[in-house]
Amino acid sequence: MESLEKEAAIALDYLSRVSQEAEKKFDELLPPVTDQPCRLHEAMRYSMFAGGKRLRPALVKAAFDMFGGKGNSVDYAMSALEMLHTFSLIHDDLPCVDNDDFRRGKPTSHKQFGEATAVMAGDALCIHAFEMMGKTGNAKAIEILAHLLGTYGMIGGEMIDIESEGKAVDLATVDYIHYHKTAALLEASLEVGARLANATEDEIKIIRDYGRSIGLAFQIVDDILDIVSTTEELGKDAGSDIEKGKATYPALVGLEKSRERARELYDESIKALDGLKYDTTILRSVAAFIITRVK
Amino acid sequence: MESLEKEAAIALDYLSRVSQEAEKKFDELLPPVTDQPCRLHEAMRYSMFAGGKRLRPALVKAAFDMFGGKGNSVDYAMSALEMLHTFSLIHDDLPCVDNDDFRRGKPTSHKQFGEATAVMAGDALCIHAFEMMGKTGNAKAIEILAHLLGTYGMIGGEMIDIESEGKAVDLATVDYIHYHKTAALLEASLEVGARLANATEDEIKIIRDYGRSIGLAFQIVDDILDIVSTTEELGKDAGSDIEKGKATYPALVGLEKSRERARELYDESIKALDGLKYDTTILRSVAAFIITRVK
Repeated sequence: MESLEKEAAIALDYLSRVSQEAEKKFDELLPPVTDQPCRLHEAMRYSMFAGGKRLRPALVKAAFDMFGGKGNSVDYAMSALEMLHTFSLIHDDLPCVDNDDFRRGKPTSHKQFGEATAVMAGDALCIHAFEMMGKTGNAKAIEILAHLLGTYGMIGGEMIDIESEGKAVDLATVDYIHYHKTAALLEASLEVGARLANATEDEIKIIRDYGRSIGLAFQIVDDILDIVSTTEELGKDAGSDIEKGKATYPALVGLEKSRERARELYDESIKALDGLKYDTTILRSVAAFIITRVK
Repeated sequence: MESLEKEAAIALDYLSRVSQEAEKKFDELLPPVTDQPCRLHEAMRYSMFAGGKRLRPALVKAAFDMFGGKGNSVDYAMSALEMLHTFSLIHDDLPCVDNDDFRRGKPTSHKQFGEATAVMAGDALCIHAFEMMGKTGNAKAIEILAHLLGTYGMIGGEMIDIESEGKAVDLATVDYIHYHKTAALLEASLEVGARLANATEDEIKIIRDYGRSIGLAFQIVDDILDIVSTTEELGKDAGSDIEKGKATYPALVGLEKSRERARELYDESIKALDGLKYDTTILRSVAAFIITRVK
């Protein structure tokens, strides 16, 4: 595990650098709070600047740079992916969905701005993300991103997650939820970055295989951390999965087998990268970071 | 007024033909209810097939055909515009927003499927619309559509509408709300159709001027109908604007002056069309329909 942690340190450094760069772009590309509707723009920025690892923008950039992408289309795409992730968190936290009061140690959007504004802020971030994607000039990337975000991707995962609460579910359902709710958008981040860099379809297939593996690993680790961490460490309610009767990996197979599965997925992600004739240092380190992270 | 009604008959016929065609496309392009997440797909279809004039798809098609567009990209765009309109209605009807129980004579989405599903169904329609737009291959059209849908367009209008409820507002605010909440998406429908047909920037400017005028007229007539019609005629709660303290034209200047303003806007829309060297029969008739409609 020690060498994995050394690898993960590269990713941590990368994430920290990309975060700073990305947050400057978010500030540039989000509407200013001085423009009408001011309070809505404030709510959009509140959630966008509430912290977070900025993993999706980092994956967009890592894929774009690895495949030799040039130009500023990547800035729009990095911002778009974080806006889409933030939109999903705002709507997931709503009283009628997960009813969460805190996110990243701060009151959730509806707690801070009221429910109507939270609904609209999520909508507005989703729409603004597609405006940013329009600026990339790549309609194919938009089509694929929307597909992986919609009912065959992230939204589909959230819906089955909601429907499964408090029910006995099997591992296939948990896998469905994990893949769709989490892995699909990570996959999309990588594919968008790759497409903007004009990667080949074969290369895109490989990067998506990698994305699927780290995405599933990411969600399993999330479920593990929900059990073994404190609320303070997580910045959101620890143990809330169990409380809500959420379908999770540890609930079905236990902590040890969950850790084993995350490690297997890590191995699969690294194996996928072997098919690429590029410098995969960053992506390897991101995979290591994902299974060694503690928050 | 009689000749206007004759003109409007052309639009009614056109809308009826386009509706049938468009609804076949919706059925093809919406995910089937047999695919997971089934209940979400059911909710998306429930609202998409709850009726309506299909005005936005008709404007997409009218502009596309008038400018000599070829190919099937228009089908995707027509469906996308109706999905975006439907998404906005579902979220507007939510208990935390307008809290409406009926829409087009049927229970609203959250009444039929529950709030969480209604939030997700709106999100999913919005996202699916951008997937369809991605299939048109026109990234510029996507960028502009998102702009006119977002906080500088429809969502901005909805937000200020919500914030203005029960407050004394001036005519400038009502104009802001009307333009953004309603006219922006009609303008976008026309511009998307025009762009897919490779219209020039000058032509696009004209078609947007027309769109803005009929959009403002449309919303003024909507406000008038909310006062003079019965609930049965409207298929939604009549008089609900007054009940909710909504900022409307008739509330500020009275019915007669509101009718005059709608007529002025009609004249402006027709004047805009004079700048085009195309057959504007359909668009003229749509303008006539908009100010003579009774539901």
